[in-house]
Amino acid sequence: MVIVMAPEATRQDVDAVVEVVAAAGGSAFVSRGVSRTIIGLVGDVAQFGTLDLAGMRGVADVMRITAPYKLVSRENHPDRTTVRVGGVPIGPDTVTLIAGPCAVETPDQTLQAALMAKAAGATLLRGGAYKPRTSPYAFQGLGVEGLRILTDVREQTGLPIVTEVVAADDVATVAEHADMLQIGTRNMQNFPLLQAVGAAGRPVMLKRGMSATIEEWLMAAEYIAQRGNLDIVLCERGIRTFETATRNTLDISAVPVVQRLSHLPVIVDPSHSGGRRDLVLPLTRAAVAVGADGVIIDVHPHPEQALCDGPQALVDGDLDALAGVMRDLPPLVGRTAAALTPA
Amino acid sequence: MVIVMAPEATRQDVDAVVEVVAAAGGSAFVSRGVSRTIIGLVGDVAQFGTLDLAGMRGVADVMRITAPYKLVSRENHPDRTTVRVGGVPIGPDTVTLIAGPCAVETPDQTLQAALMAKAAGATLLRGGAYKPRTSPYAFQGLGVEGLRILTDVREQTGLPIVTEVVAADDVATVAEHADMLQIGTRNMQNFPLLQAVGAAGRPVMLKRGMSATIEEWLMAAEYIAQRGNLDIVLCERGIRTFETATRNTLDISAVPVVQRLSHLPVIVDPSHSGGRRDLVLPLTRAAVAVGADGVIIDVHPHPEQALCDGPQALVDGDLDALAGVMRDLPPLVGRTAAALTPA
Amino acid sequence: MVIVMAPEATRQDVDAVVEVVAAAGGSAFVSRGVSRTIIGLVGDVAQFGTLDLAGMRGVADVMRITAPYKLVSRENHPDRTTVRVGGVPIGPDTVTLIAGPCAVETPDQTLQAALMAKAAGATLLRGGAYKPRTSPYAFQGLGVEGLRILTDVREQTGLPIVTEVVAADDVATVAEHADMLQIGTRNMQNFPLLQAVGAAGRPVMLKRGMSATIEEWLMAAEYIAQRGNLDIVLCERGIRTFETATRNTLDISAVPVVQRLSHLPVIVDPSHSGGRRDLVLPLTRAAVAVGADGVIIDVHPHPEQALCDGPQALVDGDLDALAGVMRDLPPLVGRTAAALTPA
Amino acid sequence: MVIVMAPEATRQDVDAVVEVVAAAGGSAFVSRGVSRTIIGLVGDVAQFGTLDLAGMRGVADVMRITAPYKLVSRENHPDRTTVRVGGVPIGPDTVTLIAGPCAVETPDQTLQAALMAKAAGATLLRGGAYKPRTSPYAFQGLGVEGLRILTDVREQTGLPIVTEVVAADDVATVAEHADMLQIGTRNMQNFPLLQAVGAAGRPVMLKRGMSATIEEWLMAAEYIAQRGNLDIVLCERGIRTFETATRNTLDISAVPVVQRLSHLPVIVDPSHSGGRRDLVLPLTRAAVAVGADGVIIDVHPHPEQALCDGPQALVDGDLDALAGVMRDLPPLVGRTAAALTPA
Repeated sequence: MVIVMAPEATRQDVDAVVEVVAAAGGSAFVSRGVSRTIIGLVGDVAQFGTLDLAGMRGVADVMRITAPYKLVSRENHPDRTTVRVGGVPIGPDTVTLIAGPCAVETPDQTLQAALMAKAAGATLLRGGAYKPRTSPYAFQGLGVEGLRILTDVREQTGLPIVTEVVAADDVATVAEHADMLQIGTRNMQNFPLLQAVGAAGRPVMLKRGMSATIEEWLMAAEYIAQRGNLDIVLCERGIRTFETATRNTLDISAVPVVQRLSHLPVIVDPSHSGGRRDLVLPLTRAAVAVGADGVIIDVHPHPEQALCDGPQALVDGDLDALAGVMRDLPPLVGRTAAALTPA
Repeated sequence: MVIVMAPEATRQDVDAVVEVVAAAGGSAFVSRGVSRTIIGLVGDVAQFGTLDLAGMRGVADVMRITAPYKLVSRENHPDRTTVRVGGVPIGPDTVTLIAGPCAVETPDQTLQAALMAKAAGATLLRGGAYKPRTSPYAFQGLGVEGLRILTDVREQTGLPIVTEVVAADDVATVAEHADMLQIGTRNMQNFPLLQAVGAAGRPVMLKRGMSATIEEWLMAAEYIAQRGNLDIVLCERGIRTFETATRNTLDISAVPVVQRLSHLPVIVDPSHSGGRRDLVLPLTRAAVAVGADGVIIDVHPHPEQALCDGPQALVDGDLDALAGVMRDLPPLVGRTAAALTPA
Repeated sequence: MVIVMAPEATRQDVDAVVEVVAAAGGSAFVSRGVSRTIIGLVGDVAQFGTLDLAGMRGVADVMRITAPYKLVSRENHPDRTTVRVGGVPIGPDTVTLIAGPCAVETPDQTLQAALMAKAAGATLLRGGAYKPRTSPYAFQGLGVEGLRILTDVREQTGLPIVTEVVAADDVATVAEHADMLQIGTRNMQNFPLLQAVGAAGRPVMLKRGMSATIEEWLMAAEYIAQRGNLDIVLCERGIRTFETATRNTLDISAVPVVQRLSHLPVIVDPSHSGGRRDLVLPLTRAAVAVGADGVIIDVHPHPEQALCDGPQALVDGDLDALAGVMRDLPPLVGRTAAALTPA
Repeated sequence: MVIVMAPEATRQDVDAVVEVVAAAGGSAFVSRGVSRTIIGLVGDVAQFGTLDLAGMRGVADVMRITAPYKLVSRENHPDRTTVRVGGVPIGPDTVTLIAGPCAVETPDQTLQAALMAKAAGATLLRGGAYKPRTSPYAFQGLGVEGLRILTDVREQTGLPIVTEVVAADDVATVAEHADMLQIGTRNMQNFPLLQAVGAAGRPVMLKRGMSATIEEWLMAAEYIAQRGNLDIVLCERGIRTFETATRNTLDISAVPVVQRLSHLPVIVDPSHSGGRRDLVLPLTRAAVAVGADGVIIDVHPHPEQALCDGPQALVDGDLDALAGVMRDLPPLVGRTAAALTPA
């Protein structure tokens, strides 16, 4: 941490800061410039954070100079991580396609969507059994019944399952059925839930909060990591901005930025960020081209009957194009499409 | 709901929309203009929402024309509501000052902060026993021990207690001790938690999500109301914008906007929105002047030692000024400062 | 400026930074911490800004520690400034009401609006002769004819005139007629225009760009000041955020924040920020209560016929309430309503 | 336009709206639903916009249903346009690389940068002679001298020139030297400047305002088109959001969204949106993959000495990679890299 003193700060003001830092167990190095004095702090940043340094006499500014996360930081772990979900890799050498219906509605709809996904090259199946919905009047998911449908479809297709969990109390049940637990955008800072999935012994996909900075997103991952689980895949799904032409604004730059700050894999959700079917393929191409480690896409056999997010699901005709993207683009970024491992 | 057809839409396209709506149990009224056909839908909007109307041939746009919330809407409940917390009113005739420490740390610190708050005119005590923190390395609150400190201080000062709950599993315990349950900004869309406090039999203070639209905020209140609890107080606490000079941007306009859309009381948190002590008094004056039903303010006897948000807590010298604001400003907006009711 | 070196930076990396800074005429002070080395720069920041310091080997971060503006900074000019417009003060001791029609349409409409404004306590008349409009098909203002109407109305009412200028070529003409030149939100970074008004010998009202940070706003003021004109009044008029319930989000906190950073007066535009008539009075009260040095408000005798922004103009019935606010609120913040000086 | 009446609106309220619309020369079609009456308007939207329809008794909402731009709209011009700049196409069949130095500093620096650009596959040269700078203390460009350097380099390399113009008074001079005029992000709503370039007889590149919605951006293009110039290329360059890890947030989705709304070509600026050299190549790949009609990139022979935006300029080592992207990616989106036409 660096403390910048105001031009009018006195020697006593500087000494007072040094003392407070020392009392908190840290060390302070004072650099006197011509018009400004700067104090560099060494020690435990979390502890300094609780001091009211900014409120002390003569202090003009307090600036943090180290990242507040550790376990997920690339600084401490230079090699990028590959997370394996039921044997399928998500990491720096591959591009993994995760696809399936937004919500599990019926066994037949789920199976059909899974077969569409697989035909397009997907090696992981997404599908929501528990749905966090903005309106209390909207379809909230089938719950445990939905989990059972997913495991049946996994048996029929061989695709490992990614599904969302929205309450700490449900984590054990979901972890029993699913291969990967998804934390949705609205729960990115639901800290008890993060701690529960951190202890659940399953890989976790952590969606970025729709108004979370990249740093806050990595701090949320740190919560999970701190419970002993480093099998975390980050998912960029669009942020909230002033633009209303798309549901959210896909922050495509976040992919290379995060890959530099953290060793964790990063994938992109082109379906929820745009909220429009016609944007899914262009944004998928952009995601693979920018270097994402995978994409997660909504498909539905009959989107006009979908109970959730039908307007953005890919339909039959789009899937050939998606398969083409998964075939042609990964080699251009030095990767292969991730394959299902033989059972 | 109104469906706007594209200029090139055919009669068949229009008929197809009408049929889909009829099949979903609604009625559709077609108005043919010179260059555009418009279709008005009558029926259950929630059901139409799941149809992929925007994806149908010839449809240019789908526009919602009624608010998606009902129980909290002023349209269905024209008189503004007064919520009573341990006898203290929060509503259209009063300005209620809620104050106290951001986090409960020790019995002594909490009592001192409560006495400071009371001297400044507060009639409700705030104080966090469970703290949602961005960093897993930051102080997370005292939990049940903190609740006990709060009830002791309530006994000593007579101030009813407002405190945050961050997990559905804790709701019963917190409701046993507190007079009002607070839902923090990060949990505004934690739907299981909203449902739990909706069933807890205590008034609820619902902070606005830092990137929530006013409509989403009212939808979150609807979740609580739907479980039978209409004793909800909304709290504007700043939204996330591009400006970094303040921690968040206080959306002062939200107060009159919400008061027009909903019958629920609305208060303002000038401490967390600005994140700076020097902004608390000016923003408190603005909040009362704009017509807020109350304010919630951090005070701390020794902010430089605070374990949480010390830089924004008011200290002794500020409290006289705060007391002056609570005395002079409410009459100018046709209100009185809310009083503690005799036990 | 402070340069934070990466943990893996070598002594050579540090030396290279020191050399580059020295070559640019600055001095560098190196502080070696346990895990980090920090380099403090002394000298001309503008010059350092052109160096690619962030791109040098071993550099983790470059942080600015001094404000990039000087002439408008409070650091260099601790006393807050009072700007006088045709004798009417805008500054720390007063609250100045500026009111009038958004656009000058006819002599009669302008005179009526001016009389309404004066009755409500306004001592400066606003009115647009040149209108920057988002659509090329919208009314663009009367131009010079509008200026003549304004000067006639000034003669009839005694109210000095504030009017917008949108092109550097018009500055001389507008300055000939008006008492204060207004720079609109879309032109806040129109640098040739800023330089032109800086040289025009008239007070300037500089509206905040709708997506400008406070720092960028003060830098824009610095452009004007640099041409020798320090009679600048800043005007907060709402910023662009994700919230769509109001046209823009009034950043009420900007008022005290700017008053701390700059000696220039700051006023608020409650009409354009909200874009709704029912918000004007509450936001005016908030602006005065937060400590603004004035407000600027749209009034129109017949808003339903207005050629511009009719939906937000105050009408007759509202003006008594506005007069009441101007009478009752300023004393509570230690000010008086600014008066017209006797001719 | 569609007017939604409030549930409590009376027949008289509806009649009053119909009369006002008729008086303004439009027609109104009334659809009475069970709980709501909707009025569809037919006629000149610009004229209705000046009516205070939203302020009339019984009106709940006023919704626009047609785009406010016409000349640039794809609705009126279904085939996508190819703009030719000195013979080089920018349009749906090609991907055009525009590259060069952010600012023209010296003849040698400009020539070297142009040769670097050409080697990487660029067929148009960018370079700023007039620079809009946030700080009045920053380098403001060489002006006419810079234009002369550019024309010399054009002669030496054969690359047509794209350069920015910041003041209406400079348009004629810049148009005399340059092959394409660039309007920067800060001037997107500088309407006199838009009108001047609309009349200058040169293709125009219109950068998106950093806080402009897509609709406002297209309205700005409409200003240019309205003066008779339809040779407009739109350039997405990042928007302002809460995220600070990148200078701006590249809105990659804007490319397909705009291509659906407008017939004009759309290119991407990966240098200014990210503001970081390490993001330029990934974002360039994303731009081409998403379907952009071109990219514009900063290159500099010695970025550590650049007078402007050095930290984001590509250097020698990066250019091979850029050349590879221009060779391999366009075929995957059914395009070819745009070529220089033989003189």
